[in-house]
Amino acid sequence: DILERPEGLELGGDLREVTIMMSDIRGFTTLSERLAPDQVVKMLNRYLGSMTDIIMAHQGTIDEFLGDAILAVFGAPLARDDDADRAVRCALAMQAAMADINAQNLAEGLPEVETGIALNTGVVIAGNIGSERRSKYGFVGHPMNVTSRIEDHCAGGETLISRSTLDKLNGHYRVAEPRTLKAKGIDQEVEVYRLQGELA
Amino acid sequence: DILERPEGLELGGDLREVTIMMSDIRGFTTLSERLAPDQVVKMLNRYLGSMTDIIMAHQGTIDEFLGDAILAVFGAPLARDDDADRAVRCALAMQAAMADINAQNLAEGLPEVETGIALNTGVVIAGNIGSERRSKYGFVGHPMNVTSRIEDHCAGGETLISRSTLDKLNGHYRVAEPRTLKAKGIDQEVEVYRLQGELA
Repeated sequence: DILERPEGLELGGDLREVTIMMSDIRGFTTLSERLAPDQVVKMLNRYLGSMTDIIMAHQGTIDEFLGDAILAVFGAPLARDDDADRAVRCALAMQAAMADINAQNLAEGLPEVETGIALNTGVVIAGNIGSERRSKYGFVGHPMNVTSRIEDHCAGGETLISRSTLDKLNGHYRVAEPRTLKAKGIDQEVEVYRLQGELA
Repeated sequence: DILERPEGLELGGDLREVTIMMSDIRGFTTLSERLAPDQVVKMLNRYLGSMTDIIMAHQGTIDEFLGDAILAVFGAPLARDDDADRAVRCALAMQAAMADINAQNLAEGLPEVETGIALNTGVVIAGNIGSERRSKYGFVGHPMNVTSRIEDHCAGGETLISRSTLDKLNGHYRVAEPRTLKAKGIDQEVEVYRLQGELA
């Protein structure tokens, strides 16, 4: 696992075009307050386990779990021609997997959950970030912040992809009419599309 | 390092009262766009290296680096009577270290940077969070989200501590008059104090 062996990567930073994925469970913190801690961790780990498997199957690089949030990128450390397509197909597979996760939750008396997923494509600085004691392959740049703002606008069960991701797709997908987001700290408006499925 | 060996921790989740620290460099992303990628990573790693040393010297647990952001907690996995005090002293030491970091930056033609630090105390769920393939000791709960909102309000060079952290302190510190924050997703208002120093 290249992420766990940063000494195997070159030092310094590279500019990389990546498709960034951020997801989280809508209202998870509020929901977690009604449950015992063990139940929260069980439910969270079921969800994260399923999502991890799907992201890895689509050759995504998981950068972080932060509570119920997942940050992954497609296109680093290895770039491929279909980075944006794999990210979109990954998001569709993640949303599709929620039915099974919720069936397991319901069978155990746990609540149903919904995830929101944001995808955005842009050039970021990728490098081994941290200290001598602790470093990891990570990413810096405005596209990371933009993705976070898009994620703030995702409803439960919704996947929003930015115009920049849409422009990189080779496959054909159904999307809804664009919405324009204005977000704190981002100068320009961001055009996003709700992802509805892949066309046969 | 207990964080690197999650199998050494019990499964499930525990309720823990912790003092949460979130920090980041003000305007780092914008600043990074004016620099070469190698310079960005060099500057970032100098900062993160110094901050890591200080946090570890104060027995804080670093949960994450995310770009220029640091998430650390004081009080888990091991709780001590002075968790909040160590967090406050750590924040003061981190701000004091910025002068040296900036002297090094200036000597190399790199820009000066300022950090904002938010501290908040509350009960969170702590546990091994993730999947079979990838898990880490992590934290879930409203106090995490509140800390993030406080961090959004920190100016450069500013450390804001919540009322809940102030109430836990055994030492004596100088703080400015309270400010009340209203933040998206947080029902109640949050009272925060600007940390100015420790009293002799």
